[in-house]
Amino acid sequence: MADRFTAFTVTDVRFPTSRELDGSDAMNADPDYSAAYVQVATSAGDAGYGFVFTIGRGTEVAVAAIRAVEPLVVGLDVEATLADLGEFWKRLVHESHLRWLGPEKGVMHMAIGAVVNAVWDLAAKRAGQPLWQLLADLTPQQIVDLIDFRYLSDALTPDEARQLLEAAAPGKEVRRKELREHGYPAYTTSAGWLGYSDAKVARLVGEALADGFTHVKLKVGADIDDDVRRCAMVRELVGPDGLISVDANQRWDVAEAIENVARLAPSGLYWVEEPTSPDDVLGHGAIAQAIAPIKVATGENVANRVIFKQLLASHAIQVAQIDACRVAGVNENIAILLLAAKFGVPVCPHAGGVGLCEIVQHLSMFDFVALSGTTQGRWIEYVDHLHEHFVDPVRVQGGRYLAPRQPGSSAELRPTSVAEYRFPEGSTWQAPSLTLLKEES
Amino acid sequence: MADRFTAFTVTDVRFPTSRELDGSDAMNADPDYSAAYVQVATSAGDAGYGFVFTIGRGTEVAVAAIRAVEPLVVGLDVEATLADLGEFWKRLVHESHLRWLGPEKGVMHMAIGAVVNAVWDLAAKRAGQPLWQLLADLTPQQIVDLIDFRYLSDALTPDEARQLLEAAAPGKEVRRKELREHGYPAYTTSAGWLGYSDAKVARLVGEALADGFTHVKLKVGADIDDDVRRCAMVRELVGPDGLISVDANQRWDVAEAIENVARLAPSGLYWVEEPTSPDDVLGHGAIAQAIAPIKVATGENVANRVIFKQLLASHAIQVAQIDACRVAGVNENIAILLLAAKFGVPVCPHAGGVGLCEIVQHLSMFDFVALSGTTQGRWIEYVDHLHEHFVDPVRVQGGRYLAPRQPGSSAELRPTSVAEYRFPEGSTWQAPSLTLLKEES
Repeated sequence: MADRFTAFTVTDVRFPTSRELDGSDAMNADPDYSAAYVQVATSAGDAGYGFVFTIGRGTEVAVAAIRAVEPLVVGLDVEATLADLGEFWKRLVHESHLRWLGPEKGVMHMAIGAVVNAVWDLAAKRAGQPLWQLLADLTPQQIVDLIDFRYLSDALTPDEARQLLEAAAPGKEVRRKELREHGYPAYTTSAGWLGYSDAKVARLVGEALADGFTHVKLKVGADIDDDVRRCAMVRELVGPDGLISVDANQRWDVAEAIENVARLAPSGLYWVEEPTSPDDVLGHGAIAQAIAPIKVATGENVANRVIFKQLLASHAIQVAQIDACRVAGVNENIAILLLAAKFGVPVCPHAGGVGLCEIVQHLSMFDFVALSGTTQGRWIEYVDHLHEHFVDPVRVQGGRYLAPRQPGSSAELRPTSVAEYRFPEGSTWQAPSLTLLKEES
Repeated sequence: MADRFTAFTVTDVRFPTSRELDGSDAMNADPDYSAAYVQVATSAGDAGYGFVFTIGRGTEVAVAAIRAVEPLVVGLDVEATLADLGEFWKRLVHESHLRWLGPEKGVMHMAIGAVVNAVWDLAAKRAGQPLWQLLADLTPQQIVDLIDFRYLSDALTPDEARQLLEAAAPGKEVRRKELREHGYPAYTTSAGWLGYSDAKVARLVGEALADGFTHVKLKVGADIDDDVRRCAMVRELVGPDGLISVDANQRWDVAEAIENVARLAPSGLYWVEEPTSPDDVLGHGAIAQAIAPIKVATGENVANRVIFKQLLASHAIQVAQIDACRVAGVNENIAILLLAAKFGVPVCPHAGGVGLCEIVQHLSMFDFVALSGTTQGRWIEYVDHLHEHFVDPVRVQGGRYLAPRQPGSSAELRPTSVAEYRFPEGSTWQAPSLTLLKEES
C-alpha cells in the first residue's frame, strides 16, 4: 500500500507570557506567545510538525488557515512529495483560491509555511538527520529546484543561485566540522524587554555578559527619553567593545526614526531594527542612508521574498532578519538566503517567541555550511523562554547555538505541554480566576 | 438604555461562478466569487453590512478572522463610535495580537476592513444618506480625523491632506449636482475574461460598445500569442478612439512584462494592470519607465496604504486601483485617495467580484465631489455579475454608474440570496451532483 499523507491535527497552544511582561515591546505590550501547531501524519505512522507563531488572540484564525491547506495535502504520496519539495511548495502557494487571501502574505501564507515546515521536519526525520544537515547535503541543483523564482528573476536567476552555491561547495566539510565543534554565534534579547525596570535590565545584561554574550538588544520606541537613558546605562555595562542593537518594533515614521536614532547614536549602536513599517522599502532606504554607518535591520514581519528582494537589491537594509514562521517555510527562506548572499547582506535571524529559535537555527547553520560560508557579522537571536516545551530544545552555551543532532527541524512540542497549554481547554487556561472571568462575561 | 453594538452574524456565501468561467484570468482560472459576509447589529435594532470578498475555498478563514474582531466591537456605544470612526479604525488595526497576523495585510486586515465598512454602512443608514454623500458632506478636518497617518507622514502630512480637501471645497455643490444628473464613468471587463472564446469576446465587445462603453479591458498573461491576437481583434472592433486596457493578474516577472507589453503595444494599450507582484514597488517602477507612455495600473491586491504610498510617491504606477475590500475599509481607502491626489495619480477602482462595484462606487463619487474634483482619466470598473443579489444594486447606464440614492453603502445582500448561496448549507451547494461528489470523496 502506498504511503500517503493522512490527516492534520491542528492545535491552538497559548503560553501566558503576558503575566510577566516577557516579550513586551513598543508595539506588542502584552503578548501571550502562542502557536497554531500542526501535526502532518502519514499512513506509515510517522509525522512532521510545524506551526504558525502568534502572540495570543487570533490564533484560532491561523488554525482555520492551516485547516484550509489540509485538503491540498491529504492523500498525496509521501515519498513522491519529499522527492520534489519545490513542486509541493508551488502546489500550496499557487492554489488560486487560497492565494487570493494574501496574496502570499498574512495568515494564509503563514499557514502554508507551517505545513511546508512540517513536511520538512518529516523529511529530516526520515533521513535521520537534523534539518540543517539535510539541507547542507543537497546539491546546488537540488537547492535551486526548491525555489520558485517567480518575481525574483530581475534580482536573482536560477543560474546565479546555482553559482553562489557552487562557489561555497569546496569548504563545506571544514565548516560542517567547525559548526559541530563550536556552534553558531548568538545575541540575546532576553535582557531588554520594554516592560522591564532599569534594575532588571542591568541585572540581566550582567548575566548575559557572564554567559558569554557580546551582543545584546534593547527594545525602544515607546519613549525616546527612556530609550536614551537605557542605552547609555547598557553601554556602561557592556563596555566599549560590546555590541548594542535596538529594536523599535515598527513604532516610528521615517523622519521620526532618523531623529530618534540620532539621539541614541552616542551610545554606539550596531543595528536599528524595524525602525518603521516592514512594508516600507523606500522608507527603510531613506533611514539607512541617513543613519549610516549604523545598520538597518528588518525581516520578522516582512511578508515574503518579494519585499525582501527589494530591501536587499536597493540596499535598504544592512542586516536581513529571516523568520522561520512568517514566510512560506523553508523553501522561501532559502530563496531569501540566496538573495542576501547575492547582495552581500548578512542574515541574522529573528527568533524568540515560542519555538522560533528551535527552527531558525537550522536555516542559519545551512547558510553557514552551504552558502555564505561565514559567521562574520552574523548572530542568531536568542531569547530564553519556553524552550522546555520542546522535545529537542536549542542548546546555547557560551553565547553560541550548538548544532542540533537529533533528526528533524526541532519543531516538535512535548505532548504534555500541548495538553497543558492548549487553548482554552488546557489546565493553564482553566485556573479558577480565569474560569470565573469567563463565567462573568 | 445606551445603544450598543450587540453581536456579529457572519456567513460564508459562495456563488458558483466557475461553472461558466466568468471571472477567469491568468492567475485565477476558476473563481467562485464569494464573501465572508458580516452583519453588525445594534441594541437599537438596526445593523450595518460588510464583507471580505474571496474567490471560493478559504472563505471560512475570512469568517474566522471576522469573528476574531467581534469582541473588540460588541458592547461599544454606537453613537460614540460613529462620532469618531478614526479612533474606531485605530482600535481595530492597532490591536496588537491581531496585528501580528498581518501586520496590516492579508486575511486579518481584510476582516477588519469588512467590519469597518459595515459600521460605515450603519453610519450612512442612520444619516439617511448614501455613503458617498455622507463622506462628501464631512468637513476637511473631519476627513483628516478619519486617517491614521502612521507610516504616511514622509509622503503626506495631516496639514497637506486638509489643504487638498480645502482646495476642492468650492466646487462641491456643482459636482454633486453633476454626479446626480450624469453619474460617473465606467469601463467594462465583462467582455474579456480569459476563459472566453474569441467569438464570445467579439460579441461581448460589440454589446459593450452598443451599451455606451468606450473603454474595455482584456485579461492577458497565459499565452502571449493569444494575447496579441485578441488585442488586435478588439482594436478592430473598438476603432482607433476606443480605449483598450489589459490585465496580466500578476503573471509576469519584470523583464517578461516589459517584453510582452512591447508585443501588445501595436494594438494601442491604455494601461497594463498588475504586470507583476503587487508587492513589487521597484519592479512596477522599472516596468513603468520601460513601457511609457502606456500606463501601469495596480491596486486590487495591494495590501495597505504603505505599499500604495510607495507606488504613488515613486511614480511606479500611473493609475491607482483601490479595492473596497482589500485594505482596512473606508478609512484606509480615503488615505489612499488622499495620497493619489497628492501625487496627481488618477484613481480607477477595481470592482467586479461580488459586491465590489456596489461599495467602491461610493468612494469614487466621494473622490470626485470632495477631493479630485474631476472624472478626467477616471473610470470605475464594471462587471455585470451578481448584482441581482443586492438590496441596492448598482445602476449602470450608457457606460456610467448612476449615483446611489438609498441610505448606506449598498453592501447589503438580499436575505433570499444569502439563504440560497450560503456554503455549504444553501440549496445551490446541495444540488444532487454536488452531494454525490461529496459522498464519493
